[in-house]
Amino acid sequence: MSKSTAILLISCPDQRGIVARLSGFVFERGGNIVDSDHHSDLQAGRFLGRIEWEDESSPEERAQLRRDLEVVAGPMGGSWQLHFSDVVPRIAIWCSRQEHCLLDLVWRHQAGELGAELAFVLSNHELLRRHVEPLGIPFHVFPITKDTKAAQEQRQLELLRRERVDLVILAKYMQVLSGDFLRAFPEVINIHHSFLPAFAGAQPYHQAHARGVKIIGATAHFVTEDLDSGPIIEQDVVRVSHRDTAEDLVRKGRDMERLALARAVRLHLNRRVLTYGNKTVVFE
Amino acid sequence: MSKSTAILLISCPDQRGIVARLSGFVFERGGNIVDSDHHSDLQAGRFLGRIEWEDESSPEERAQLRRDLEVVAGPMGGSWQLHFSDVVPRIAIWCSRQEHCLLDLVWRHQAGELGAELAFVLSNHELLRRHVEPLGIPFHVFPITKDTKAAQEQRQLELLRRERVDLVILAKYMQVLSGDFLRAFPEVINIHHSFLPAFAGAQPYHQAHARGVKIIGATAHFVTEDLDSGPIIEQDVVRVSHRDTAEDLVRKGRDMERLALARAVRLHLNRRVLTYGNKTVVFE
Amino acid sequence: MSKSTAILLISCPDQRGIVARLSGFVFERGGNIVDSDHHSDLQAGRFLGRIEWEDESSPEERAQLRRDLEVVAGPMGGSWQLHFSDVVPRIAIWCSRQEHCLLDLVWRHQAGELGAELAFVLSNHELLRRHVEPLGIPFHVFPITKDTKAAQEQRQLELLRRERVDLVILAKYMQVLSGDFLRAFPEVINIHHSFLPAFAGAQPYHQAHARGVKIIGATAHFVTEDLDSGPIIEQDVVRVSHRDTAEDLVRKGRDMERLALARAVRLHLNRRVLTYGNKTVVFE
Amino acid sequence: MSKSTAILLISCPDQRGIVARLSGFVFERGGNIVDSDHHSDLQAGRFLGRIEWEDESSPEERAQLRRDLEVVAGPMGGSWQLHFSDVVPRIAIWCSRQEHCLLDLVWRHQAGELGAELAFVLSNHELLRRHVEPLGIPFHVFPITKDTKAAQEQRQLELLRRERVDLVILAKYMQVLSGDFLRAFPEVINIHHSFLPAFAGAQPYHQAHARGVKIIGATAHFVTEDLDSGPIIEQDVVRVSHRDTAEDLVRKGRDMERLALARAVRLHLNRRVLTYGNKTVVFE
Repeated sequence: MSKSTAILLISCPDQRGIVARLSGFVFERGGNIVDSDHHSDLQAGRFLGRIEWEDESSPEERAQLRRDLEVVAGPMGGSWQLHFSDVVPRIAIWCSRQEHCLLDLVWRHQAGELGAELAFVLSNHELLRRHVEPLGIPFHVFPITKDTKAAQEQRQLELLRRERVDLVILAKYMQVLSGDFLRAFPEVINIHHSFLPAFAGAQPYHQAHARGVKIIGATAHFVTEDLDSGPIIEQDVVRVSHRDTAEDLVRKGRDMERLALARAVRLHLNRRVLTYGNKTVVFE
Repeated sequence: MSKSTAILLISCPDQRGIVARLSGFVFERGGNIVDSDHHSDLQAGRFLGRIEWEDESSPEERAQLRRDLEVVAGPMGGSWQLHFSDVVPRIAIWCSRQEHCLLDLVWRHQAGELGAELAFVLSNHELLRRHVEPLGIPFHVFPITKDTKAAQEQRQLELLRRERVDLVILAKYMQVLSGDFLRAFPEVINIHHSFLPAFAGAQPYHQAHARGVKIIGATAHFVTEDLDSGPIIEQDVVRVSHRDTAEDLVRKGRDMERLALARAVRLHLNRRVLTYGNKTVVFE
Repeated sequence: MSKSTAILLISCPDQRGIVARLSGFVFERGGNIVDSDHHSDLQAGRFLGRIEWEDESSPEERAQLRRDLEVVAGPMGGSWQLHFSDVVPRIAIWCSRQEHCLLDLVWRHQAGELGAELAFVLSNHELLRRHVEPLGIPFHVFPITKDTKAAQEQRQLELLRRERVDLVILAKYMQVLSGDFLRAFPEVINIHHSFLPAFAGAQPYHQAHARGVKIIGATAHFVTEDLDSGPIIEQDVVRVSHRDTAEDLVRKGRDMERLALARAVRLHLNRRVLTYGNKTVVFE
Repeated sequence: MSKSTAILLISCPDQRGIVARLSGFVFERGGNIVDSDHHSDLQAGRFLGRIEWEDESSPEERAQLRRDLEVVAGPMGGSWQLHFSDVVPRIAIWCSRQEHCLLDLVWRHQAGELGAELAFVLSNHELLRRHVEPLGIPFHVFPITKDTKAAQEQRQLELLRRERVDLVILAKYMQVLSGDFLRAFPEVINIHHSFLPAFAGAQPYHQAHARGVKIIGATAHFVTEDLDSGPIIEQDVVRVSHRDTAEDLVRKGRDMERLALARAVRLHLNRRVLTYGNKTVVFE
């Protein structure tokens, strides 16, 4: 129904004329811009932009477009990504023993909300296989112990390469990814069961209950080596009261985890998220 | 601290190359774009854009800028506005007997949140004079009856012209403005004590209570002749329960009215709101 | 882990001493009250109360308890219900062609969130059978036409009786239930795809989009003959912007429908909802 | 319009028959209970209750009521408070150099929202005198240095006693109250400019900005010696984006501070808040 588009994401030192040069670049090639948004972080002296235009070019034309773009954007001294909406990204969902985020994402995938191909589901446990395989989705188990972790991560990386996965979604995957893994495959979104920054460490809902807070939340963020401090993409919150037990907080928190993670994944797959430093710009 | 800026708001039929032409126009004149956002309503075939760039030009240069802009934007076939952040808009707050929105706006004005000059407060009643005059703000009373309304509106229009007012804010002003008034002075924002579209007519909080709703809200919108159906700028909501009486709903609703109105006014004064048809685009 | 409880819900004309009589009644029978809440609607002159106490009595003792309770509560002139938390209610989910609310409820049922037995899923279409039967849940199809509706409703009522269903959940069941049906089986919760009271009629999300609202919502309510005007149990809302198409509103609305319906069902199954007139009291 | 009421707040070890004994106590004295709510924290083994009944007794009858109540409630082994809605509590608002919470509370006081007498405003600076005295409200300045703090707190305590103040509201009072002060006058509510638990220390909005969070909040809590860790009464949150500067976060945060503080104060003055350990029960 809607035409396919090209999407340029660019992050570079702020300087005069960037918007004019980039939109002129698109115009000269006959592109019709359907969405264009940018943000200048004056404090950081940084330009962060997103331009989307109608595009139905051939693979050869796209290769040329990338070369032309490098001529224009290269001298700006930053980094840029070019995406095409008709190149469907491939995702993998990693889980452990809790199914709520996994089922929610699988349903959204099937409902066409994500605009992605689901390559496989991976877990460190067998438990959730029965939710996944009947739907015709491959389910891979990689048990992890302290001793096997490094070797298993190498096998996981091979699988990601073989399956041409663009994005890993940690949907309550209770393992920490190593710095080696993240350097080899940096595109990973996690859901944190707390309103970051907040209760550090284990069982944040129980900590929230002990502290008697009146609102709890969840945080979807890109994964970095420094646990729970990667760039935040999306957060959501819900009111709680003294009547809620720690278990009620866990239950209410699950709903926020599902919503925040799904929104973050969708924003990223729509190429609406740029990171710089430890922060994100979300063009929405 | 921050430099002054020029802000272009433009609404026109969607067409190829608008962003390139407009940003090129700014770049050729040495302007540094600090914010640029646009939206194409594909269904309506309409382009709606906002470009903001650093500008410290003289009045003569600005007059020339307008002429040059007409050459570029005129052929696009729509309408455009050019604002300068160092030209402080002048507002008038109109109230009746309830003070909560009035006091909130006056405080935000004094706190520098609005970025506007407050020309005067107007009311159809004497009641709130004591809140306004001690702060050194002129307070004008225009009693309105069915018979005097047309004549009073003419005097109000004269006052607005004399005081060079750019925006009238109806902060619980309980009179309906006539079509004649609105054609002569169309820039009016109102706060509606309900989550539009919702309970039509009088006493919406009492209707909400009778209906047993669990959430109530308030709506800030531009005023049109057709009461309560002007373009919506901002809405806010709050949870209520069976324990809340109709009076509690009125009290909780006041907080939402204050917030929604203040946000809408600030967005408009920052030149972030464009209307088309019966809708708004809010660039934020 | 937690003991089983008895729950008394009572609605009667407000009068002196109700709490004392009811809590005294429980105390005399050795009951330990774990939760007690009541609300007096002074305007309506109505007392609405909920008392929950630990109870591990036998079926015979429970029959006697009901007789004793009638002696105390009968003269109060209202109506009362007595529930036991170890008597698990049986639910049926009715759907049509949209699966989001159905799947959400099925997940919550499987996760133990609802505290109910799922007797069956019913639809007027075959489409969703593939989501339901693989989970071992019976799926019944009752095609409805104008001519067959009355007869089909009789068969539906037979099925509900045979399966001892306590609550029917309309999870996007796109058929209107007749007054005859509702008189025979009044315990029905529906999810309305709008923030009631709001856009009446069909396609509320498209109406919301045309009106340019900044917040949309969903409403879970008991079903009455008068469509969409039954007692409201729960509502939820989400922000939208000019960037959202009508389809985006449908997508965002689905999330609110899932949350509002699941919360309403859980509150009702926990015996926390009392209706009076066209309103609810939600003890939470 | 509405009759005056007596309100009993009680906290004691959980035990059989408390509700029956307390409601029976009220009934025997001819009281008509208009609101009764309780919570049993099963984990802590604690009963926390609130009973409100119509009462128009004389001072002598009230003194007798207290003696009778001690006979009933004393053996329960906890603590209880008895309040009368026609005994209007007296409050003092303490501020420093920021006026937003002060003005908001003063407006609400004048609008009759708080149900309290405002004894005086106190500050460690002269700055806000001009907002307070024109309204006929006494304004006391107590400059504080490290050396004078202990002596000034003694003078503050004398003023509180002389003015029969029941509640001190710290409306952005930027001084830490000593343990000695709090032991002598424990009823103090503070507004914390962050969504506790969150960014510890100074400038939480700037920390929130540096961390790139998508939601910020404010927390109203009772003051304890351990800074920012007293029992939380109310919290509120607002969405922010990458477009918001640290100053925007401060501005948006002010609105949440105003709302959360005003709600917390109103709930407490309506005798709806009970503390136990480091938590609150809010009966609403």
